Amino acid sequence: MGLIVQKYGGSSVADTERVKSVADRVVATRLKGDDVVVVVSAMGNTTDLLTTLAREVCNEPNQREMDLLLSTGELVSSSLLAMALRQLGQDAVSLSGFQAGIKTERRFGRARITSIDPQRILKELDRGRVVIVAGFQGVTEDEDVTTLGRGGSDTTAVALAARLSAARCERFSDVEGVFTADPRIVPNARKLADISYEEMLELASAGAKIMHPRAVELGSVYKVPIFVASSFNSAPGTLIHEETLMEEGTKVRGIAHDPDVAKITVSGAPDTPGIAASLFEPLTSEHIRIDSIVQNASAHSVTDFTFTVGLEDLKAAIGLVEPVAETIGATSMQTDDQLAKVSVVGAAMRNAPGFAAKTFEALFHAGVNIEMMTTSEIRISAIVSRQAVPHAVKTLHQTFNLESLDEAS
Amino acid sequence: MGLIVQKYGGSSVADTERVKSVADRVVATRLKGDDVVVVVSAMGNTTDLLTTLAREVCNEPNQREMDLLLSTGELVSSSLLAMALRQLGQDAVSLSGFQAGIKTERRFGRARITSIDPQRILKELDRGRVVIVAGFQGVTEDEDVTTLGRGGSDTTAVALAARLSAARCERFSDVEGVFTADPRIVPNARKLADISYEEMLELASAGAKIMHPRAVELGSVYKVPIFVASSFNSAPGTLIHEETLMEEGTKVRGIAHDPDVAKITVSGAPDTPGIAASLFEPLTSEHIRIDSIVQNASAHSVTDFTFTVGLEDLKAAIGLVEPVAETIGATSMQTDDQLAKVSVVGAAMRNAPGFAAKTFEALFHAGVNIEMMTTSEIRISAIVSRQAVPHAVKTLHQTFNLESLDEAS
Repeated sequence: MGLIVQKYGGSSVADTERVKSVADRVVATRLKGDDVVVVVSAMGNTTDLLTTLAREVCNEPNQREMDLLLSTGELVSSSLLAMALRQLGQDAVSLSGFQAGIKTERRFGRARITSIDPQRILKELDRGRVVIVAGFQGVTEDEDVTTLGRGGSDTTAVALAARLSAARCERFSDVEGVFTADPRIVPNARKLADISYEEMLELASAGAKIMHPRAVELGSVYKVPIFVASSFNSAPGTLIHEETLMEEGTKVRGIAHDPDVAKITVSGAPDTPGIAASLFEPLTSEHIRIDSIVQNASAHSVTDFTFTVGLEDLKAAIGLVEPVAETIGATSMQTDDQLAKVSVVGAAMRNAPGFAAKTFEALFHAGVNIEMMTTSEIRISAIVSRQAVPHAVKTLHQTFNLESLDEAS
Repeated sequence: MGLIVQKYGGSSVADTERVKSVADRVVATRLKGDDVVVVVSAMGNTTDLLTTLAREVCNEPNQREMDLLLSTGELVSSSLLAMALRQLGQDAVSLSGFQAGIKTERRFGRARITSIDPQRILKELDRGRVVIVAGFQGVTEDEDVTTLGRGGSDTTAVALAARLSAARCERFSDVEGVFTADPRIVPNARKLADISYEEMLELASAGAKIMHPRAVELGSVYKVPIFVASSFNSAPGTLIHEETLMEEGTKVRGIAHDPDVAKITVSGAPDTPGIAASLFEPLTSEHIRIDSIVQNASAHSVTDFTFTVGLEDLKAAIGLVEPVAETIGATSMQTDDQLAKVSVVGAAMRNAPGFAAKTFEALFHAGVNIEMMTTSEIRISAIVSRQAVPHAVKTLHQTFNLESLDEAS
């Protein structure tokens, strides 16, 4: 008999009917003989409603108070799920992040878990209970409630699975699994039965909205197999785990896209040491993620910097970069907010050359203009215009034979 | 500089506009130089909404889970109030029952406070903050969340005032203060400037919906002056404190009424020792409060018991008494669910005789039939028909000259 950690997202517990259907699933798992720890998100739009209340009483909610406020959402869904399980005859208990022993650093709104004291959970499991843990939250050493920020509940689940040495972590949401491309763009995209942590991380960072990279990374570090499936049907999901079979190592695994990319170009900056740092440091200290950077040095000791940021960060980035550009004597600054990123991901790239060339060639023949191109060990990303995304994704999906069952790159 | 504990009820924080107006009041108090601890109830109908959710997922919610669920209501209002105070420039922090050090016995749904560890509150006050404590909740030794049941938030406030040696506890709600009678029945009822704990307790037990007797009693034990006033206007309220002035000791203080009384009569029971106990023990062990009891013994070694219970307990009481009545061989059982109780309260009764006679006489002349009559040291209660309540209350209010400013019984 092992231990399974299951996590259900907000849409999976959107209303009391959905909570009851989650209870059915948990009981079915329990009946197979495994111990079950369940992590839940807040019901549907609870977080939005609470945030609205906060904005009604003040302009800029204090983050400590905001965390205490938001943490109630998961307490509500947890206790309701415990009640629904008891209604089905399954003994169950719900625990707040504090009660579950989840300690975090003192950084409200985006705290990281520092440790988990599993005593209470283990005690409740020993009593034959299903233990439900409120996701997304923990407490500081001073017992102040913190929330974990983006991907928080997934992170709670994977962290618990790691700490409790669970057989695996099952993440149920409205996402059915990992596909070779977004099925809304490529109707014949295939669902993958499994994928490696590394490939999943690249896909997630490249815009695939499956699971927050943070939770995948945690799973990777502690070797927690993560099964991603739908809570709305019983279709088979995707298992994220260690490197997949050797014989699959020659394939591209998927095409990801991020439709919301913006580009900033600072032209005519002096080509002296430290210039790049002075431009990018203000951005990183504000946690604005810079994706691709291209530097073009010209003959006259001046240089151009072009880099991309998420569209949602563009305004803030301009505000930070503009004064620096003036200070260092750059001649101009341009922005483009109509861009997107298309990425090809697969561990195969590590072993075989030619993927970048093939990607470049395929997009060129399809008439897709490539603004910038960056690569990692197992990923090739092209910055293209936003309107070119569907065509580019379809082209690459076909180029790498992802729709066929008999895969070959 | 002293310490004031303020408590705001659910209607006082019904929406975010009301929360902001509470923040204004708290700041005004703080500006006078006192430290302030604020206890809040859940916003408006939050508790009802949460209860509805619980009933949607199960027939009979587990009480431990119910307490965790309900406790979120006060967490929401507390954190919102803290934000609203900060918006006004007043540093503030909200604390859950657990964070505020409120320990209770392990009795979910109606726990009693066992102790308060004030360390965290004192630390926050030292930092110049207004401390907001979620009312109605505490934790067991095992850190499970409990709720305090009826009158819970008032009890939190008075208990904190006692533990922190506050100068006084101010309770703000939609009740303006203690009146000589319900102003909806007696338009010229007067608001009392002050009243003793004892008189307040009698009024509250007699049906006056000012404050739960439990909180008044706690105030009485720890000598916490409790000021009751409206949070909707600035009308002067009523101070509940130790025995009022000696010269007021000859007056009736008020007329209370409880419109929901039911009567049960068990006839023809054998007049043997232990019969009364066998009838009433099942009721008290189910926490059904028996109010008046009258026993009429007849000549043939049989006896009739008549007693009253709250109308809301009638059904349960019948279920408990009926089998006992059969077992002991009583000849019949009758019930009357159309009754009410009218009470005259005043410490004066202790010192002067004749109040009962005067009450009886007044009601008789007014044509109000008295079913039963009971007295305590400072209270006279008459069980009358429900429809006679307005006439009875008005009659007694006039009989004891409560409307006149120049009071005399």
